[in-house]
Amino acid sequence: MLQPGARIGILGGGQLGRMLAMSAARLGFDVHIFTPEENSPAGRVAAAATIAPYEDLDAVARFAARVDVITYEFENVPVETARRAGEFAPLRPGVKALDVCQDRVAEKSFVNAAGAQTTLWRAVSSADEADAAIAELGAPAILKTRRMGYDGKGQRVIREASSAREAFESLGGVPCILEAFAPFTREVSVVAARGVDGAIAAYPLVENHHEGGILRTTIAPAPGADALAGEALRIATAVLEGLDYVGVLAVELFAMDGGRLLVNEMAPRVHNTGHWTMDACAVSQFEQHIRAIAGWPLGDPSPHSAARMDNLIGADANRWQALAAEPGACLHLYGKGEAREGRKMGHVNRLSPLS
Amino acid sequence: MLQPGARIGILGGGQLGRMLAMSAARLGFDVHIFTPEENSPAGRVAAAATIAPYEDLDAVARFAARVDVITYEFENVPVETARRAGEFAPLRPGVKALDVCQDRVAEKSFVNAAGAQTTLWRAVSSADEADAAIAELGAPAILKTRRMGYDGKGQRVIREASSAREAFESLGGVPCILEAFAPFTREVSVVAARGVDGAIAAYPLVENHHEGGILRTTIAPAPGADALAGEALRIATAVLEGLDYVGVLAVELFAMDGGRLLVNEMAPRVHNTGHWTMDACAVSQFEQHIRAIAGWPLGDPSPHSAARMDNLIGADANRWQALAAEPGACLHLYGKGEAREGRKMGHVNRLSPLS
Repeated sequence: MLQPGARIGILGGGQLGRMLAMSAARLGFDVHIFTPEENSPAGRVAAAATIAPYEDLDAVARFAARVDVITYEFENVPVETARRAGEFAPLRPGVKALDVCQDRVAEKSFVNAAGAQTTLWRAVSSADEADAAIAELGAPAILKTRRMGYDGKGQRVIREASSAREAFESLGGVPCILEAFAPFTREVSVVAARGVDGAIAAYPLVENHHEGGILRTTIAPAPGADALAGEALRIATAVLEGLDYVGVLAVELFAMDGGRLLVNEMAPRVHNTGHWTMDACAVSQFEQHIRAIAGWPLGDPSPHSAARMDNLIGADANRWQALAAEPGACLHLYGKGEAREGRKMGHVNRLSPLS
Repeated sequence: MLQPGARIGILGGGQLGRMLAMSAARLGFDVHIFTPEENSPAGRVAAAATIAPYEDLDAVARFAARVDVITYEFENVPVETARRAGEFAPLRPGVKALDVCQDRVAEKSFVNAAGAQTTLWRAVSSADEADAAIAELGAPAILKTRRMGYDGKGQRVIREASSAREAFESLGGVPCILEAFAPFTREVSVVAARGVDGAIAAYPLVENHHEGGILRTTIAPAPGADALAGEALRIATAVLEGLDYVGVLAVELFAMDGGRLLVNEMAPRVHNTGHWTMDACAVSQFEQHIRAIAGWPLGDPSPHSAARMDNLIGADANRWQALAAEPGACLHLYGKGEAREGRKMGHVNRLSPLS
């Protein structure tokens, strides 16, 4: 169990690293950020920052030798970077979570093997395989690159079987996955943590609304979802244990007619659909992750309030004056300079009494 | 109104500066700390830190020239330091608040002139004046140094009139104030803010328990104190307006039999009796102070939960493992190395539903 005053290393300097760093500081830890970005959101609230490319394994080694535990804020940290860092201090979560979550085919295979359902899917490595897969799964379906997709990037909706080949080529001919369309009633997610001792704590299931592939709103807890809670926890537990995971992980789920849950994707990190916990729970997902990787007991994940979380995307952030003046609105801005289109600039949590 | 991304300068690197810095970051500001202390609690969560003595006015000027607004985390910042800094950027709160609050005689005079009651008091500059003052006010009474006292330091309780002279000398013969003993029923405080536009927002009155001159516990809101709220707000408003104040200020009050409130002392800064707001309000006292000095609208000070705040003083902090395991406890540790006796190491907030 790390003592207060110990040093926590975080790979990645974005807003998730920033909020992790502030939660670590609240518990008395010092934070060291590794990021290729000068003047990063996370580096500006940390005790130390190393600015270097992820591929500079010597810089990674020097960074890792100076901290007591290492974590990452996003799943696209190169596996070699994480592996090198892990030679100097415990890497939590471990390399297996990166290996699985960086490749949509590996992820779906893992999830199915763990006993959780997904929509039907096929690996697609060529235009011919794209044709064959759409013939099997039927249109509409979604073709996604296996690697490096996020916030709706690297995806094509295939509305007619005849366009599968063209979609594959428009994604650059890289290895893809074809996913059958899931006629879900709503999107929900579960954010859960596993401690070094194997204890598991899950925040309540929440309901999510996306626009253009980007999360806009989370309603927490998800209304009328009591009947789904057990199955969501079972899925999260299977995933956490299957990865021998330490830290916070999110599972995005499709809720189907009749109460079935399909795993859409998972993220081996704190997650945008858990941002509401910052203001509605005694222990936020960020503190929970720090507790887990520090070997501390997990915090109580039960909320004291209900919450609605709205992302501030691109020009939304220009509404900060109105949001600052709104009674009861909890405003979070990430310290990013330019409000580019599609860029997550902040979020706002609005609390209400638990019903 | 400062834009997110603007730079906030804070004089002082302790835990109050640390919590101010984290609240500023949450709103997207960059923080620059000025402190004589290497590796200070606040410096380790800030974008920049200047390490120099407060008397190094050139360093103060260089610091101040790099920020957009300047504030302080404690009232014993030398007035000359604050004045020099204020030549480069707005100093909020201003020099007047320091002038008044650094000297207990100036403070009591100001409070009385503002129309608020205090216990009876006399300025004492010599052993003979100590004798004369105790003869007027009677024993028991409390002799305090006019300057630099905090957490019960620089005080002597005079239980018999004959010991006044000796008490004065034991405090080093420096200018003092003799305060009549106030037979209060309880200690309460009000933490309030005033914006650049003159708007005022006050958190609910809270009840405080001290041991050995150091705050141990705050109960928020103060139970059964509805009848006192109006008078507390009137006092806070008079003080804030009398100082032409911008930022958060705390007024410690003695509640007397029959509902009268006497001002004990005031602090021109965020205050230990406001720490409960970090977890029980949408906008904490720290964010409120940042909002005020940045020219933002003040946040809604109404709590969503009741709270009990307990300080972790000295060896109390060694209980962090038990506190970390307690469901619903919100733990805050300040990143201080050594748990010296009487040193504030952290605090814990425990929430409950508002009654």
